[in-house]
Amino acid sequence: MTTDEVGAEGLSEVRGKVTITEIARQAGVSVPTVSRVVNGRLDVSPQTRARIEDLLLRHGHRRRAAAPASGAALLDLVFNDLDSPWAVEIIRGVEEAAHAAGVGTVVSAIHGRSGDAREWMRNLRARASDGVVLVTSALEPVLHEELRALGVPLVVVDPAGSPALDVPTIGAANWSGGMAATRHLLSLGHRRIGLIAGPPRLLCSRARFDGHRAALEGAGLSVDETLVVPGDFHPESGFTGCNTFLDLPEPPTAVFAASDQMALGAIEALRRRGLRVPQDMSVVGFDDLPEVRWSAPPLTTVRQPLAGMGKLAVGTVLRLARGEQPDSPRVELGTELVVRSSTAPPAP
Amino acid sequence: MTTDEVGAEGLSEVRGKVTITEIARQAGVSVPTVSRVVNGRLDVSPQTRARIEDLLLRHGHRRRAAAPASGAALLDLVFNDLDSPWAVEIIRGVEEAAHAAGVGTVVSAIHGRSGDAREWMRNLRARASDGVVLVTSALEPVLHEELRALGVPLVVVDPAGSPALDVPTIGAANWSGGMAATRHLLSLGHRRIGLIAGPPRLLCSRARFDGHRAALEGAGLSVDETLVVPGDFHPESGFTGCNTFLDLPEPPTAVFAASDQMALGAIEALRRRGLRVPQDMSVVGFDDLPEVRWSAPPLTTVRQPLAGMGKLAVGTVLRLARGEQPDSPRVELGTELVVRSSTAPPAP
Repeated sequence: MTTDEVGAEGLSEVRGKVTITEIARQAGVSVPTVSRVVNGRLDVSPQTRARIEDLLLRHGHRRRAAAPASGAALLDLVFNDLDSPWAVEIIRGVEEAAHAAGVGTVVSAIHGRSGDAREWMRNLRARASDGVVLVTSALEPVLHEELRALGVPLVVVDPAGSPALDVPTIGAANWSGGMAATRHLLSLGHRRIGLIAGPPRLLCSRARFDGHRAALEGAGLSVDETLVVPGDFHPESGFTGCNTFLDLPEPPTAVFAASDQMALGAIEALRRRGLRVPQDMSVVGFDDLPEVRWSAPPLTTVRQPLAGMGKLAVGTVLRLARGEQPDSPRVELGTELVVRSSTAPPAP
Repeated sequence: MTTDEVGAEGLSEVRGKVTITEIARQAGVSVPTVSRVVNGRLDVSPQTRARIEDLLLRHGHRRRAAAPASGAALLDLVFNDLDSPWAVEIIRGVEEAAHAAGVGTVVSAIHGRSGDAREWMRNLRARASDGVVLVTSALEPVLHEELRALGVPLVVVDPAGSPALDVPTIGAANWSGGMAATRHLLSLGHRRIGLIAGPPRLLCSRARFDGHRAALEGAGLSVDETLVVPGDFHPESGFTGCNTFLDLPEPPTAVFAASDQMALGAIEALRRRGLRVPQDMSVVGFDDLPEVRWSAPPLTTVRQPLAGMGKLAVGTVLRLARGEQPDSPRVELGTELVVRSSTAPPAP
C-alpha cells in the first residue's frame, strides 16, 4: 500500500460521499495529487489545488473535524530530548494555545532514536492525533511520509536543519538577532568581539553568524577568524570557547555567545580566572531563558519568543487540520535585544 | 447520579459478567464500597478490600486495560503552571516512563483557575485518560471526587499542601535535605547561618525548615529568629531576603536558600554589593536545577530527584490502573547534597 492510497482510503472513509478516484477524474489529476491536497501538503500548484478543493467542497467534503465526536482532540508535541532548557517555554506556549482551543497536548521525546520514533508513530496513529508540532529535525523522512499518509498535519518549530519544502515551519529571526547582539557591543565601543558560534550544520547557527558578520561589516570591520570558535549550544562549549579567547595574545573585549547556555559557560570561565563581567569582558547571549534574568550578572541577551512560537505552531496546525492553508509556509517571529548587566563599554 | 453509581456502571460495562450489586451482596458490603475498591481508593479497610478483590477476581473481573483496543493509552500530567523551572524535569521523567510503557503523556496547566480545571476535566473524560499525575494541590475537591467517580487513578507529585488521605503521593525527603544543607555549612565552620525559607503554607517548606533546625540543634545551636526570612521560592525573594541579612548589624556568614531560584537571587544581592561567593558568604540552594551547575559560581545544593519522582508517579498510576495497590500511599525519594563552588569556610 502506498502513501497516497492510505490517504485516499482515509478520505473516502470519512466522507462516504464520492470516491477520491472520482474527484481525481473530474479534476483531471492523479489520485495521489488529490490525496496531497486532502493532506494539506504544499507541493501542489495553486491552480490545481484550487480546482481540487473546489471539487471536494462541491461534493460535500470536509476534512475530519479537529474534535471528533468519539473523543477529545489531541495534538502531539514532539521533542528530540526534553533536557533542553527552552523545552518548557515551548510546552508552555503550545499548551496554552491548545487548551484555549479545547485540544489536549501529548508531549513526547524521541531521543533521535529510530525505535522511539516508530513507537511514537504507532501511538500517534492509535490515539488519532489531530496534528503534530515537531521541535526537532530528527524525524526520519519515512515517518514524515507516514504522517502525510495519515493526513495528520505537521508544523515544525525552530527547524535546526533544512526543513522539507512542503512542511510549514516557525522559527525566530536569527539573523536579525545576531546582528542586534553585535551592534549592541559595537555601540558600546567594542571592536574586538569574540563569537562562540552554534553548530554549523544548524541553519539557526549560520543565520546568527551571518547577522554578527553583517553588523561588523556595517561598522567597517571584518570577521577575524581567530575570534570565532565553534560551540554546541551547551554550557561546556561556552566555557571552553571563552578560555580559547582568554589564551589569545590579545583577547577580545566582548563575547557574543550564540546561546544563553554558552554565555553562562563563558561567564564561568571568566569567573575562574578572577575576571569580572562586564568590567573585564562583556558577554551577550541568545535565547533569553527565564534563568538568565538571575545569572550573575543578569545577562544581556537576544530574546527568542519561544512560547509565542509554540502558540503560533498550534494555530497553524489547527488551521491545517481544518483544511485551511497557512498564510506563509515559513514564518519567523521577531527577536529582541534585552539589555541587562553583562555588557558595558570596554575597559579604557 | 452519584459518584459511586458512575463507578459501578463503568465496572459492569467493562466486565459484563456479574453485577457490582451481586459482588456487594456476596461481600456483605454496600455498592459504594465495592466501587471504591474498583476505583483504587485507599479508604477501605484492608480486610474488606481483600474480601472484595477476591470476589472480583473469582468473577473474572479485570479493571479496564491500560491500553484499550480502541486507542492508545494516555495519562494526564497536570501542573498548576508551566513556568516552574523544574516542570521540565518532571515532564522528562514522566514522559520517559510513560513512553516505555507505551503510554502517551498529555501535559496540561490549570493556572489555579476553576474554569481551566473544569475544561481539563471535560477533555480528560472525552479522551478516556488512563490515569492522572497531578503536580499541584490546586485541584478542587469536587474534581478529585469526579476523578474517583470516573475510576481514573490519581497520583500527586510533590504535594505542596496537605494531600487528601486516600490519594497516593510522591515527594522528596525535604526534612533530610534541609538537614544535609545546614550540616554541610556547620561542617565548614559556619555558626551564623541565615535561612531563606519557603512559603510556610507548603509542607515542603516546613520540612526543610525543620531539617535546618534539627541540624543546628544537633550542633548545640538554636534558631536565631533574625536569621530566618520568608521567601516564595522565586529569585526576587532570595534577593530581598539576602539583602535583609546583609543589613543586619552582624550578617550571617552563610545562607541556606530553600530553593535554587532563591539562592540565585541571594548570589545576585551579594554581587551587587561587591561581595564574593563563597569567599565573603557561602550559599546553599535546594532542588539542583540543571542550570545551577553553571551559575556563577556553580551552586552547592540539595538534589531533588524530580525526574525520578515523575517516573515513580507513572509506575504508581499504572499499577493503580491495573487494579493493584501502591506499596505505600506516601513515598519520599531521597535527597542528596551536591557540593560545588558556592560554599567554603567562613572568612577568618
